[in-house]
Amino acid sequence: MTLLHDALAKIRPLDPALLDQAQAKLDNKTKPLGSLGRLEEFARRFAAITGTLEPQTDRKVIYTFAADHGVVAEGISAFPKEVTPQMVFNFLRGGAGINVLARHEGADVRVVDMGVDYDFGLLAGLIDRKIARGTANFAKGPAMTRQQALAALEAGITLANDCKEEGIAMAGTGEMGIGNTTAASAIIAAISGLPVKQVTSRGTGINDAALANKIRVIEQALQVNRPDPSDPLDVLTKVGGLEIAGIAGLIIGCAANRIPVVVDGFISTSGALIAAAMNPLIRDYLFAAHESVEIGHRAMLDLLAAEPILDLRLRLGEGTGAALAMGLIEAGVKIMKEMATFEQAGVAEQQG
Amino acid sequence: MTLLHDALAKIRPLDPALLDQAQAKLDNKTKPLGSLGRLEEFARRFAAITGTLEPQTDRKVIYTFAADHGVVAEGISAFPKEVTPQMVFNFLRGGAGINVLARHEGADVRVVDMGVDYDFGLLAGLIDRKIARGTANFAKGPAMTRQQALAALEAGITLANDCKEEGIAMAGTGEMGIGNTTAASAIIAAISGLPVKQVTSRGTGINDAALANKIRVIEQALQVNRPDPSDPLDVLTKVGGLEIAGIAGLIIGCAANRIPVVVDGFISTSGALIAAAMNPLIRDYLFAAHESVEIGHRAMLDLLAAEPILDLRLRLGEGTGAALAMGLIEAGVKIMKEMATFEQAGVAEQQG
Repeated sequence: MTLLHDALAKIRPLDPALLDQAQAKLDNKTKPLGSLGRLEEFARRFAAITGTLEPQTDRKVIYTFAADHGVVAEGISAFPKEVTPQMVFNFLRGGAGINVLARHEGADVRVVDMGVDYDFGLLAGLIDRKIARGTANFAKGPAMTRQQALAALEAGITLANDCKEEGIAMAGTGEMGIGNTTAASAIIAAISGLPVKQVTSRGTGINDAALANKIRVIEQALQVNRPDPSDPLDVLTKVGGLEIAGIAGLIIGCAANRIPVVVDGFISTSGALIAAAMNPLIRDYLFAAHESVEIGHRAMLDLLAAEPILDLRLRLGEGTGAALAMGLIEAGVKIMKEMATFEQAGVAEQQG
Repeated sequence: MTLLHDALAKIRPLDPALLDQAQAKLDNKTKPLGSLGRLEEFARRFAAITGTLEPQTDRKVIYTFAADHGVVAEGISAFPKEVTPQMVFNFLRGGAGINVLARHEGADVRVVDMGVDYDFGLLAGLIDRKIARGTANFAKGPAMTRQQALAALEAGITLANDCKEEGIAMAGTGEMGIGNTTAASAIIAAISGLPVKQVTSRGTGINDAALANKIRVIEQALQVNRPDPSDPLDVLTKVGGLEIAGIAGLIIGCAANRIPVVVDGFISTSGALIAAAMNPLIRDYLFAAHESVEIGHRAMLDLLAAEPILDLRLRLGEGTGAALAMGLIEAGVKIMKEMATFEQAGVAEQQG
């Protein structure tokens, strides 16, 4: 538990002086005060997180964590679980949505096997952190052991530590795991206490009958496992997923290493919820990439006090929203770094 | 009037078969149906506008149209009018917000002098289409003559025709002109019939007293000039601006040449309103870049039946929102072009 404990203990509040200095720098640029809206917020927070008014943004990485879910046995997904390893191969060949969008934004994609129910052997490009071949069916008992949940969290933290070593400027989270909207809905229901049907929707696209079944399965999971909302590790263990644990770990590690971290949609945000429940300061290190179509996402964002950057009705996951949001965050940082000041440009300042 | 008339007559409705073919192509990609939300809409419309399922997106240009406004004599802006030419120099040196964001998105910035009250002489990089040294004070009489409005529209159309020659894939609109939110508010008030105070806000950041004055000035302008809402050229002539006319012309020309055109914020959208009032088919060729902070923008978007792509509380203009939105539209097109199909990737398709 040392790695997790150390990372959580290392996280510091943002320095308000840095936030002020960044805003002062922005206010000197040739534009009306505050006129670049949220781009200025991105720049300010990026500066305070990284501790510099001249942060680098070149090296960007999306971590796409993959794992399987025992709860698919309950018929909660529109896709068969074989799709999880099939999509891992697709990621590694560069043909998936996340590959296209990360390329477009100049980010690398790193695929992490946290718990896919498939033996990849030694596969070039795949980061092997497999904890188990998928979780157990949490409709019947805990998804994993507490030890497995811890190991998965620490795998994520280690990736963030490696980012620091490598000089990665910004990390993004993504995931692939057939059945994982069921886990994410179970997590937000457990943590918020909201009724399951208020935080559960169609995932990759199930019909009405399947949605009713999915809600019933999550209600059963909460009854069977009784996850303790005051113990985020217990929630993760009982109704989480291995990729969600990896995401939570990456986020904790990024906050500990002062690396801005862009959280993708519904499933990634469930990981952020677990992380922020372990140390609320983590919320200052996060950027919420987009408003997901999943109805439980809004409750998650409220708990994180996070305002999503994009609203493009995305519901693919993989890190696709994070890749696009990264481009906008980087744009904000470049405004702070590259725009001319009033003095440099010989432009008259605002009156009255 | 031939150039304008010809361009308007050349505009065709989008081909529904192309929209369907683009969606079919998207539906074959390795993702749940529709899961990339608005990115899919962007791809579909881009394909239908350009007439191909493999559209190029590399060559992107933002046109930043600059002009002055006689109505600044009424004290409606927080900045002195000298800022218009000062910002033109800033654009040409690459230090303004639009330069930073266009560079980030891989777009060129082209600065067009439509009517700045300054003699630039022969200035490298500046496209000289000056119609007059600013408009007249429209609180006292028409902003320009009908002939000037036509000439400014046709200057914009010619730029779009040049884009076609050059093989530009996508154009964006932007502007610089101290006082131009006053003109844009007057245009939407004239066209919609809404009360001036419902479509007028603080521009670059005026205080309460200045806002009350701005509203009074626009009300006076509408009384003095009585622009005819059924004649968009009359509205443009009486309460418009030369940069707004250039934008309207560029948009008309893009639609005539089947070039997707990304409309920036409040002022650019007032140009789009004029264009779409001349031929409603133009609406299909537009992408609304972002939701502006200016309160009159929503009424404009409603009239155009356009849904903005971004909501980052921008209010700078110059084309800054258009540059960022271009990146997202391009991302959507790349999804359509570059993602693997289920068959290529050996991934199982959706069930039930």
